[in-house]
Amino acid sequence: MKENCIFCETVTGDLPAPVVFEDDLTIAFLDHRPVFPGHCLLVPKLHYETLVDLPAALVGPFFATAQLMASGVEQALEAHGTFMGINNRVSQSVPHLHVHIVPRRRKDGLRGFFWPRHKYESSEQMQSIQEAIKLTIAKLQDQHL
Amino acid sequence: MKENCIFCETVTGDLPAPVVFEDDLTIAFLDHRPVFPGHCLLVPKLHYETLVDLPAALVGPFFATAQLMASGVEQALEAHGTFMGINNRVSQSVPHLHVHIVPRRRKDGLRGFFWPRHKYESSEQMQSIQEAIKLTIAKLQDQHL
Repeated sequence: MKENCIFCETVTGDLPAPVVFEDDLTIAFLDHRPVFPGHCLLVPKLHYETLVDLPAALVGPFFATAQLMASGVEQALEAHGTFMGINNRVSQSVPHLHVHIVPRRRKDGLRGFFWPRHKYESSEQMQSIQEAIKLTIAKLQDQHL
Repeated sequence: MKENCIFCETVTGDLPAPVVFEDDLTIAFLDHRPVFPGHCLLVPKLHYETLVDLPAALVGPFFATAQLMASGVEQALEAHGTFMGINNRVSQSVPHLHVHIVPRRRKDGLRGFFWPRHKYESSEQMQSIQEAIKLTIAKLQDQHL
Protein backbone atom coordinates (compact mmCIF):
# COMPACT_ATOMS: atom_id res chain seq x y z
CA MET A 1 0.00 0.00 0.00
CA LYS A 2 1.29 3.43 -0.87
CA GLU A 3 0.46 6.46 1.24
CA ASN A 4 -1.81 9.09 -0.24
CA CYS A 5 -2.81 6.82 -3.15
CA ILE A 6 -6.56 7.02 -3.59
CA PHE A 7 -6.69 3.61 -5.26
CA CYS A 8 -4.79 2.00 -2.39
CA GLU A 9 -7.31 3.67 -0.07
CA THR A 10 -10.10 2.21 -2.20
CA VAL A 11 -8.55 -1.25 -1.82
CA THR A 12 -8.38 -0.95 1.99
CA GLY A 13 -11.89 0.51 2.13
CA ASP A 14 -10.70 3.80 3.63
CA LEU A 15 -12.13 5.52 0.58
CA PRO A 16 -15.51 3.96 -0.19
CA ALA A 17 -16.17 3.32 -3.88
CA PRO A 18 -18.97 1.76 -5.92
CA VAL A 19 -17.29 -1.65 -6.24
CA VAL A 20 -18.49 -3.99 -9.00
CA PHE A 21 -15.95 -6.80 -8.64
CA GLU A 22 -13.33 -7.95 -6.19
CA ASP A 23 -11.06 -10.95 -5.85
CA ASP A 24 -7.74 -11.66 -4.14
CA LEU A 25 -5.69 -9.67 -6.64
CA THR A 26 -7.98 -7.02 -8.09
CA ILE A 27 -10.80 -4.64 -7.40
CA ALA A 28 -13.03 -2.86 -9.92
CA PHE A 29 -15.34 0.08 -9.33
CA LEU A 30 -17.29 2.73 -11.19
CA ASP A 31 -15.35 5.82 -12.25
CA HIS A 32 -17.03 8.76 -10.52
CA ARG A 33 -16.85 10.88 -13.67
CA PRO A 34 -17.60 8.37 -16.42
CA VAL A 35 -17.17 8.91 -20.14
CA PHE A 36 -20.44 6.97 -20.23
CA PRO A 37 -22.40 5.50 -17.31
CA GLY A 38 -20.96 2.09 -16.48
CA HIS A 39 -17.34 3.22 -17.08
CA CYS A 40 -15.29 1.08 -14.69
CA LEU A 41 -11.72 1.08 -13.45
CA LEU A 42 -9.93 -2.18 -12.74
CA VAL A 43 -6.88 -1.98 -10.47
CA PRO A 44 -4.48 -4.49 -8.92
CA LYS A 45 -4.79 -4.47 -5.13
CA LEU A 46 -1.07 -4.02 -4.69
CA HIS A 47 0.41 -0.71 -5.74
CA TYR A 48 2.12 -0.80 -9.14
CA GLU A 49 2.45 2.47 -10.97
CA THR A 50 2.17 1.29 -14.60
CA LEU A 51 1.60 -1.86 -16.61
CA VAL A 52 5.36 -2.26 -17.03
CA ASP A 53 5.68 -2.45 -13.23
CA LEU A 54 3.15 -5.28 -12.86
CA PRO A 55 5.00 -8.51 -11.94
CA ALA A 56 4.92 -11.14 -14.70
CA ALA A 57 3.00 -13.56 -12.46
CA LEU A 58 0.13 -11.07 -12.13
CA VAL A 59 -0.25 -10.16 -15.82
CA GLY A 60 -2.32 -13.23 -16.70
CA PRO A 61 -4.75 -13.06 -13.76
CA PHE A 62 -5.09 -9.28 -14.06
CA PHE A 63 -6.08 -9.38 -17.73
CA ALA A 64 -8.30 -12.43 -17.23
CA THR A 65 -10.27 -10.12 -14.94
CA ALA A 66 -10.10 -7.31 -17.52
CA GLN A 67 -11.61 -9.75 -20.03
CA LEU A 68 -14.36 -10.66 -17.57
CA MET A 69 -15.02 -6.96 -16.99
CA ALA A 70 -15.34 -6.34 -20.74
CA SER A 71 -18.08 -8.97 -20.93
CA GLY A 72 -19.76 -7.82 -17.77
CA VAL A 73 -19.85 -4.12 -18.60
CA GLU A 74 -21.05 -4.75 -22.14
CA GLN A 75 -23.82 -7.11 -21.09
CA ALA A 76 -24.95 -5.17 -18.04
CA LEU A 77 -25.29 -1.93 -20.00
CA GLU A 78 -26.66 -3.71 -23.09
CA ALA A 79 -23.86 -1.98 -24.98
CA HIS A 80 -22.60 -2.75 -28.50
CA GLY A 81 -18.98 -3.01 -27.43
CA THR A 82 -16.38 -1.58 -25.10
CA PHE A 83 -13.36 0.62 -25.12
CA MET A 84 -10.47 -0.37 -22.86
CA GLY A 85 -7.57 1.93 -22.17
CA ILE A 86 -4.48 2.22 -20.04
CA ASN A 87 -2.48 5.41 -19.62
CA ASN A 88 1.07 4.69 -18.53
CA ARG A 89 2.35 7.85 -16.82
CA VAL A 90 1.27 10.48 -19.37
CA SER A 91 -2.44 11.38 -18.89
CA GLN A 92 -2.48 8.98 -15.94
CA SER A 93 -4.50 10.81 -13.31
CA VAL A 94 -3.73 8.35 -10.49
CA PRO A 95 -0.26 6.75 -10.48
CA HIS A 96 -1.64 3.29 -9.64
CA LEU A 97 -2.17 1.04 -12.67
CA HIS A 98 -5.79 1.06 -13.83
CA VAL A 99 -7.63 -0.23 -16.87
CA HIS A 100 -10.57 1.84 -18.06
CA ILE A 101 -13.49 -0.26 -19.31
CA VAL A 102 -16.05 1.94 -21.06
CA PRO A 103 -19.32 0.69 -22.58
CA ARG A 104 -19.74 1.83 -26.17
CA ARG A 105 -22.72 2.17 -28.47
CA ARG A 106 -22.72 2.83 -32.16
CA LYS A 107 -23.02 6.56 -32.84
CA ASP A 108 -22.40 7.36 -29.19
CA GLY A 109 -20.43 10.42 -30.24
CA LEU A 110 -17.09 9.14 -29.05
CA ARG A 111 -14.48 9.37 -31.75
CA GLY A 112 -12.27 6.86 -30.03
CA PHE A 113 -8.72 7.99 -29.67
CA PHE A 114 -8.44 8.55 -33.36
CA TRP A 115 -7.83 12.23 -33.42
CA PRO A 116 -5.52 13.45 -36.06
CA ARG A 117 -3.53 10.57 -37.47
CA HIS A 118 -0.85 11.05 -40.05
CA LYS A 119 1.16 8.86 -42.35
CA TYR A 120 4.89 8.68 -41.74
CA GLU A 121 6.82 11.50 -43.42
CA SER A 122 8.85 8.99 -45.41
CA SER A 123 9.47 5.27 -45.63
CA GLU A 124 12.95 5.97 -44.21
CA GLN A 125 11.44 7.55 -41.11
CA MET A 126 9.15 4.54 -40.70
CA GLN A 127 11.96 2.04 -41.17
CA SER A 128 14.25 3.70 -38.68
CA ILE A 129 11.49 3.70 -36.06
CA GLN A 130 10.64 0.09 -36.87
CA GLU A 131 14.29 -0.90 -36.39
CA ALA A 132 14.60 1.04 -33.13
CA ILE A 133 11.54 -0.68 -31.63
CA LYS A 134 12.54 -4.11 -32.92
CA LEU A 135 16.04 -3.82 -31.44
CA THR A 136 14.80 -2.44 -28.14
CA ILE A 137 12.32 -5.29 -27.71
CA ALA A 138 14.97 -7.87 -28.58
CA LYS A 139 17.27 -6.30 -26.00
CA LEU A 140 14.53 -6.32 -23.35
CA GLN A 141 13.88 -9.99 -24.05
CA ASP A 142 17.56 -10.83 -23.70
CA GLN A 143 17.59 -9.15 -20.30
CA HIS A 144 14.75 -11.40 -19.18
CA LEU A 145 16.34 -14.68 -20.32
CA MET B 1 -7.18 -17.57 -40.57
CA LYS B 2 -10.19 -15.60 -41.72
CA GLU B 3 -10.66 -14.63 -45.34
CA ASN B 4 -10.40 -10.96 -46.22
CA CYS B 5 -8.97 -10.07 -42.81
CA ILE B 6 -6.01 -7.76 -43.32
CA PHE B 7 -4.48 -8.74 -39.98
CA CYS B 8 -4.67 -12.45 -40.87
CA GLU B 9 -2.97 -11.54 -44.15
CA THR B 10 -0.31 -9.69 -42.16
CA VAL B 11 0.26 -12.82 -40.07
CA THR B 12 0.72 -15.02 -43.16
CA GLY B 13 2.90 -12.39 -44.83
CA ASP B 14 0.50 -11.93 -47.76
CA LEU B 15 0.21 -8.31 -46.69
CA PRO B 16 3.70 -7.05 -45.83
CA ALA B 17 3.87 -4.88 -42.71
CA PRO B 18 6.62 -3.14 -40.72
CA VAL B 19 6.89 -5.87 -38.09
CA VAL B 20 8.56 -5.01 -34.79
CA PHE B 21 7.96 -8.25 -32.88
CA GLU B 22 6.85 -11.78 -33.56
CA ASP B 23 6.56 -14.98 -31.56
CA ASP B 24 4.47 -18.16 -31.82
CA LEU B 25 1.26 -16.50 -30.68
CA THR B 26 1.52 -12.83 -31.61
CA ILE B 27 2.79 -10.35 -34.12
CA ALA B 28 3.26 -6.58 -33.69
CA PHE B 29 3.79 -3.97 -36.38
CA LEU B 30 3.69 -0.23 -36.93
CA ASP B 31 0.27 1.29 -37.61
CA HIS B 32 0.50 2.90 -41.04
CA ARG B 33 -1.37 5.99 -39.85
CA PRO B 34 0.01 6.52 -36.36
CA VAL B 35 -1.35 8.87 -33.73
CA PHE B 36 2.37 9.44 -33.10
CA PRO B 37 5.32 7.79 -34.87
CA GLY B 38 6.04 4.46 -33.18
CA HIS B 39 2.34 3.66 -32.68
CA CYS B 40 2.18 -0.15 -32.84
CA LEU B 41 -0.55 -2.73 -33.10
CA LEU B 42 -0.23 -6.07 -31.33
CA VAL B 43 -2.45 -8.90 -32.61
CA PRO B 44 -2.86 -12.59 -31.83
CA LYS B 45 -1.88 -14.72 -34.83
CA LEU B 46 -5.14 -16.63 -34.72
CA HIS B 47 -8.27 -14.74 -35.63
CA TYR B 48 -10.31 -13.61 -32.63
CA GLU B 49 -12.61 -10.68 -33.10
CA THR B 50 -12.49 -9.07 -29.66
CA LEU B 51 -10.78 -9.47 -26.30
CA VAL B 52 -13.78 -11.39 -25.02
CA ASP B 53 -13.22 -13.99 -27.77
CA LEU B 54 -9.57 -14.61 -26.83
CA PRO B 55 -9.27 -18.08 -25.22
CA ALA B 56 -8.40 -17.97 -21.52
CA ALA B 57 -5.11 -19.80 -22.16
CA LEU B 58 -3.92 -17.01 -24.46
CA VAL B 59 -4.81 -14.04 -22.25
CA GLY B 60 -1.67 -14.30 -20.11
CA PRO B 61 0.86 -14.73 -22.96
CA PHE B 62 -0.87 -12.07 -25.08
CA PHE B 63 -0.70 -9.41 -22.39
CA ALA B 64 2.81 -10.43 -21.35
CA THR B 65 3.72 -9.39 -24.89
CA ALA B 66 1.62 -6.21 -24.56
CA GLN B 67 3.64 -5.40 -21.45
CA LEU B 68 6.90 -6.02 -23.33
CA MET B 69 5.64 -3.78 -26.15
CA ALA B 70 4.87 -0.98 -23.69
CA SER B 71 8.47 -1.06 -22.47
CA GLY B 72 9.90 -1.41 -25.95
CA VAL B 73 7.91 1.39 -27.55
CA GLU B 74 8.54 3.77 -24.67
CA GLN B 75 12.29 3.12 -24.57
CA ALA B 76 12.82 3.04 -28.33
CA LEU B 77 11.05 6.37 -28.84
CA GLU B 78 12.51 7.86 -25.64
CA ALA B 79 8.92 8.62 -24.68
CA HIS B 80 7.58 9.64 -21.27
CA GLY B 81 4.90 6.99 -21.24
CA THR B 82 2.43 5.09 -23.39
CA PHE B 83 -1.24 4.90 -24.13
CA MET B 84 -2.68 1.43 -24.70
CA GLY B 85 -6.15 0.92 -26.07
CA ILE B 86 -8.47 -1.80 -27.30
CA ASN B 87 -11.70 -1.14 -29.16
CA ASN B 88 -14.07 -4.06 -28.88
CA ARG B 89 -16.46 -3.85 -31.86
CA VAL B 90 -17.40 -0.15 -31.69
CA SER B 91 -14.67 2.02 -33.32
CA GLN B 92 -12.83 -1.21 -34.16
CA SER B 93 -11.58 -0.65 -37.70
CA VAL B 94 -10.40 -4.24 -38.24
CA PRO B 95 -12.47 -7.00 -36.58
CA HIS B 96 -9.37 -8.90 -35.41
CA LEU B 97 -8.35 -8.15 -31.83
CA HIS B 98 -5.56 -5.58 -31.65
CA VAL B 99 -3.95 -3.57 -28.87
CA HIS B 100 -2.80 -0.07 -29.79
CA ILE B 101 0.47 0.90 -28.11
CA VAL B 102 1.13 4.61 -28.59
CA PRO B 103 4.20 6.45 -27.29
CA ARG B 104 3.26 9.54 -25.28
CA ARG B 105 5.13 12.68 -24.30
CA ARG B 106 4.06 15.31 -21.84
CA LYS B 107 2.27 18.14 -23.61
CA ASP B 108 2.06 16.10 -26.82
CA GLY B 109 -1.37 17.58 -27.46
CA LEU B 110 -3.29 14.35 -26.96
CA ARG B 111 -6.08 14.83 -24.51
CA GLY B 112 -6.31 11.12 -23.90
CA PHE B 113 -9.78 9.70 -24.20
CA PHE B 114 -11.06 12.13 -21.64
CA TRP B 115 -13.46 14.10 -23.71
CA PRO B 116 -16.52 15.27 -21.91
CA ARG B 117 -16.96 13.33 -18.71
CA HIS B 118 -19.93 13.81 -16.48
CA LYS B 119 -20.93 12.84 -12.99
CA TYR B 120 -23.83 10.43 -12.61
CA GLU B 121 -27.22 12.17 -12.64
CA SER B 122 -27.99 10.81 -9.19
CA SER B 123 -26.65 8.36 -6.65
CA GLU B 124 -29.65 6.14 -7.49
CA GLN B 125 -28.58 5.99 -11.15
CA MET B 126 -25.05 5.11 -10.10
CA GLN B 127 -26.19 2.43 -7.67
CA SER B 128 -28.47 0.74 -10.15
CA ILE B 129 -25.65 0.58 -12.72
CA GLN B 130 -23.25 -0.68 -10.08
CA GLU B 131 -25.70 -3.45 -9.13
CA ALA B 132 -26.31 -4.40 -12.76
CA ILE B 133 -22.59 -4.78 -13.48
CA LYS B 134 -21.91 -6.60 -10.23
CA LEU B 135 -24.69 -9.12 -10.85
CA THR B 136 -23.73 -9.65 -14.48
CA ILE B 137 -20.11 -10.35 -13.58
CA ALA B 138 -21.16 -12.76 -10.82
CA LYS B 139 -23.41 -14.54 -13.33
CA LEU B 140 -20.59 -14.77 -15.88
CA GLN B 141 -18.29 -16.24 -13.26
CA ASP B 142 -20.88 -18.84 -12.29
CA GLN B 143 -21.11 -19.90 -15.92
CA HIS B 144 -17.36 -20.50 -15.97
CA LEU B 145 -17.25 -22.60 -12.80
